[in-house]
Amino acid sequence: MELTVYLAGQIHDDWREQLIQKAKEKKLPLHFVSPQTNHDKSDDIGEEILGEQPNQFFRDDAASSINNLRTQVLMQKSDVVIALFGEKYKQWNTAMDASAAITMNKPTIIVRPESLIHPLKELSNKANVTVETIEQALEVLAYIFE
Amino acid sequence: MELTVYLAGQIHDDWREQLIQKAKEKKLPLHFVSPQTNHDKSDDIGEEILGEQPNQFFRDDAASSINNLRTQVLMQKSDVVIALFGEKYKQWNTAMDASAAITMNKPTIIVRPESLIHPLKELSNKANVTVETIEQALEVLAYIFE
Amino acid sequence: MELTVYLAGQIHDDWREQLIQKAKEKKLPLHFVSPQTNHDKSDDIGEEILGEQPNQFFRDDAASSINNLRTQVLMQKSDVVIALFGEKYKQWNTAMDASAAITMNKPTIIVRPESLIHPLKELSNKANVTVETIEQALEVLAYIFE
Amino acid sequence: MELTVYLAGQIHDDWREQLIQKAKEKKLPLHFVSPQTNHDKSDDIGEEILGEQPNQFFRDDAASSINNLRTQVLMQKSDVVIALFGEKYKQWNTAMDASAAITMNKPTIIVRPESLIHPLKELSNKANVTVETIEQALEVLAYIFE
Amino acid sequence: MELTVYLAGQIHDDWREQLIQKAKEKKLPLHFVSPQTNHDKSDDIGEEILGEQPNQFFRDDAASSINNLRTQVLMQKSDVVIALFGEKYKQWNTAMDASAAITMNKPTIIVRPESLIHPLKELSNKANVTVETIEQALEVLAYIFE
Amino acid sequence: MELTVYLAGQIHDDWREQLIQKAKEKKLPLHFVSPQTNHDKSDDIGEEILGEQPNQFFRDDAASSINNLRTQVLMQKSDVVIALFGEKYKQWNTAMDASAAITMNKPTIIVRPESLIHPLKELSNKANVTVETIEQALEVLAYIFE
Amino acid sequence: MELTVYLAGQIHDDWREQLIQKAKEKKLPLHFVSPQTNHDKSDDIGEEILGEQPNQFFRDDAASSINNLRTQVLMQKSDVVIALFGEKYKQWNTAMDASAAITMNKPTIIVRPESLIHPLKELSNKANVTVETIEQALEVLAYIFE
Amino acid sequence: MELTVYLAGQIHDDWREQLIQKAKEKKLPLHFVSPQTNHDKSDDIGEEILGEQPNQFFRDDAASSINNLRTQVLMQKSDVVIALFGEKYKQWNTAMDASAAITMNKPTIIVRPESLIHPLKELSNKANVTVETIEQALEVLAYIFE
Repeated sequence: MELTVYLAGQIHDDWREQLIQKAKEKKLPLHFVSPQTNHDKSDDIGEEILGEQPNQFFRDDAASSINNLRTQVLMQKSDVVIALFGEKYKQWNTAMDASAAITMNKPTIIVRPESLIHPLKELSNKANVTVETIEQALEVLAYIFE
Repeated sequence: MELTVYLAGQIHDDWREQLIQKAKEKKLPLHFVSPQTNHDKSDDIGEEILGEQPNQFFRDDAASSINNLRTQVLMQKSDVVIALFGEKYKQWNTAMDASAAITMNKPTIIVRPESLIHPLKELSNKANVTVETIEQALEVLAYIFE
Repeated sequence: MELTVYLAGQIHDDWREQLIQKAKEKKLPLHFVSPQTNHDKSDDIGEEILGEQPNQFFRDDAASSINNLRTQVLMQKSDVVIALFGEKYKQWNTAMDASAAITMNKPTIIVRPESLIHPLKELSNKANVTVETIEQALEVLAYIFE
Repeated sequence: MELTVYLAGQIHDDWREQLIQKAKEKKLPLHFVSPQTNHDKSDDIGEEILGEQPNQFFRDDAASSINNLRTQVLMQKSDVVIALFGEKYKQWNTAMDASAAITMNKPTIIVRPESLIHPLKELSNKANVTVETIEQALEVLAYIFE
Repeated sequence: MELTVYLAGQIHDDWREQLIQKAKEKKLPLHFVSPQTNHDKSDDIGEEILGEQPNQFFRDDAASSINNLRTQVLMQKSDVVIALFGEKYKQWNTAMDASAAITMNKPTIIVRPESLIHPLKELSNKANVTVETIEQALEVLAYIFE
Repeated sequence: MELTVYLAGQIHDDWREQLIQKAKEKKLPLHFVSPQTNHDKSDDIGEEILGEQPNQFFRDDAASSINNLRTQVLMQKSDVVIALFGEKYKQWNTAMDASAAITMNKPTIIVRPESLIHPLKELSNKANVTVETIEQALEVLAYIFE
Repeated sequence: MELTVYLAGQIHDDWREQLIQKAKEKKLPLHFVSPQTNHDKSDDIGEEILGEQPNQFFRDDAASSINNLRTQVLMQKSDVVIALFGEKYKQWNTAMDASAAITMNKPTIIVRPESLIHPLKELSNKANVTVETIEQALEVLAYIFE
Repeated sequence: MELTVYLAGQIHDDWREQLIQKAKEKKLPLHFVSPQTNHDKSDDIGEEILGEQPNQFFRDDAASSINNLRTQVLMQKSDVVIALFGEKYKQWNTAMDASAAITMNKPTIIVRPESLIHPLKELSNKANVTVETIEQALEVLAYIFE
């Protein structure tokens, strides 16, 4: 049994690569899917496909429509969702993805630093498990196969 | 036909009272429900009912469990959801509520200032309508009855 | 037992008023809800609430977002859907509403002239009942109470 | 991860073959399914299997029942739906398929020429993404794998 | 709390009137809904509304489409379903209604004579409760309020 | 794409073997699943596994519980359901299976002789397609792959 | 807005009467529904309605079928579920009811003594809120209206 | 066709190994998944991954959150659920898992000794089949392939 895991969350560092690398080292039967992690690509994709938009709002909306389609396709294919929040960014779309996953009954793991306990308390309470590091998230996944 | 409207979002100012007052003036057949808007009450409710918790994390989690139950009860009773984002706060729980509402097929209106276009672009794209003021949100509701 | 009936379809003539009037004459316990039937209002509502849009596409999209919210709210409250197609207009939104209703398991009646048998054959086959006049649609509704 | 894509829409030209060819050239892991694209076959299938029908209405209904079964089977197997509208035909069944897909939470891309912006505005607003060419639709699909 | 009860089953005798009368005597807060119990009316309703049909098959199908719409509307409004099978008739539509109710998670009571134990064994096993008389069915309903 | 087809209906003749043989000859990518077609086995399975039961009613109920589990497992795995009614038997469980399939949104084909038009009219109206022979049912399946 | 609350759990003491009395004193707009709390009645109801059963197993199963129907009807009508576990009894049916409620997305409060923390840990983790006294459960309900 | 079977229930003896061994001997195409059966591991997993918790309640809750995620992932992948109750332990989580499975429409088999007939009567009535030994449970599974 292989599980597909959607990795929601910030796209400003390489946490996904680290997590995927560690999963490989542990030889876990996991297949990972993700949002577009090239930030510029993610912001530009609307105009890239649909052409120039009238202003920043419509530019953002065009990109979001395509990013949201991508997320919907991949999340529906997933068995588990990991959503990581870092300290720097607002990442409302991460909260949106995690909440959508929970409402769709996808088992969901939140990764967030201790400093975000208070602002993320409601989401954390609704998720299955909340951890502070990607190593811990991976231990939770590994535990499914033990 | 009376509609029940859940008012998700920040609890640091009186936007709900203003919106409810304006709805009354327009004599719209709307019934509004909300999260706990007394911020201290909302943060304290866990320990108030369940007793002192071991530390801040568990204090927050206890409060969130009760606030989340409240939200779940009231949102399931609602026909429409309005989620307001202001400039000051992180409000990940607002994003969580809006996303849960959208995933549950509740028609959803986002209210957010122009300055939040970029960070809220994905959520805005998934919601039915995004506006910048509570007056506009109310006009959308009023339009249902025209 | 009162039933709520959503009247989807063209907004270019007064078929809804006729149907509602006839329902009243028959003293049927029916409550009717409808899309915005003032065509100009329906086309203008986006810019009216959200302000001027960059071009016709965005003007239409803004209006549609608000009309779709209205339809979603009212259709979710409905027990039966009637969708009327006339000979003049494309009315893809009527086909969209009828198909959404059927997929949501709302009992659905199609009203269409004989001339539209061929282009509407798939939708007609999926709906519960297809008739040619609003009088027939009303007879179907009346039969529920016999 | 291979995705199955349902290609709804007009069956009067070879847009599906073009799109499938281009997908092959890009080596995208996509599997395409479609309605019956032989128009005569599609219109005749009812009488072909069920025997001669009393008149054109029943002939159309018999064909539609079998075409709708085909669509239901294939759409339920699909991960994404593309619905193409051309300028020539009424294609209410395309609107029906797109709306059913959206209501079933299938990620959906509309392809339509600029001239159809106004009549398709509500459906376009409900779909995930609307584009004007099959190349753009394919770029959206390709983006899922980037 | 008033409950709505759908009375599926044969329409060849007055079992519904008897059951409703006994419910009244017990002053139970029950509201009953039923299929069309006038057999001729039920068979004729298709042609009555839609006009003469080409042959018996289409005459039956026209009537069924309207009777099925009625059943769908009323069963969706119901909290409990009672399905009665008698010894005389085939009543596959009763089995159809009972099975649809069970699949929709409507609590369901089967009433059938001892002689039908064997042919109804699978349906009986899926229903919540199987009894032999309408008095027993009513006792089950009465028990909800005790 | 291979489709799984559940073959509901009478188990007193070899219609399934015939249909499966013809499907093989046509090289259709179909995988068939069925209820227990050994009638004695099907009736005895309850006591065979659970031991002797107090009387015929409980003997039947024990068998049905295991046959219903089998049907539920296999029908949930299926993409299409064929339900065949013959002239000899009451087969309420066939009506039950077909109705459950339709309510679960499984595309459903009814096979029944002309003589059963009237008693099966409601079920026939709810199914996607109704045919009279297994050859026709197979043609409908074959059409999905054309 | 009045809420309906299902009170699952042991029927060996008067905790429901106490809770309902306290709710009345607080003038909360709550309507309570419950399983049969007369233990003998609850155990006898199967034979009372269906007649003598062959042995204890069937006697219990007959009673359970009717008690489960009652629970299903009332729980489907409820907005919130409270499930109380006491120290004395096994109450697997309370765990069953609580788990069914949670799986149906009914907001759920567990009441259990400190001594049951370990055996109820998984259920407690899945419920919205876990408290130790009915006063606390009522405070959670009261908080919804604050 | 291979079926995935979730084995819920007590983790204090080797009933799963026995059942899996017997399934292998019968060459049944079954794939089994289970909760963590190392009791200490199951109790410790919370602190193992999340670090030391403030007290026994939070230690248990941390472990449960991870065990519940595991169960949710594996049960969603399963086609059938077997839930075994032994005489020694409270096993409310087994009742919880069985009830969740039934509510999710997973075909469910209960295994319990005769001595537990009375306390498990409601759950037993809701499950598809109840047996007393794992051999019987396996016979039920084997019957699906006969």
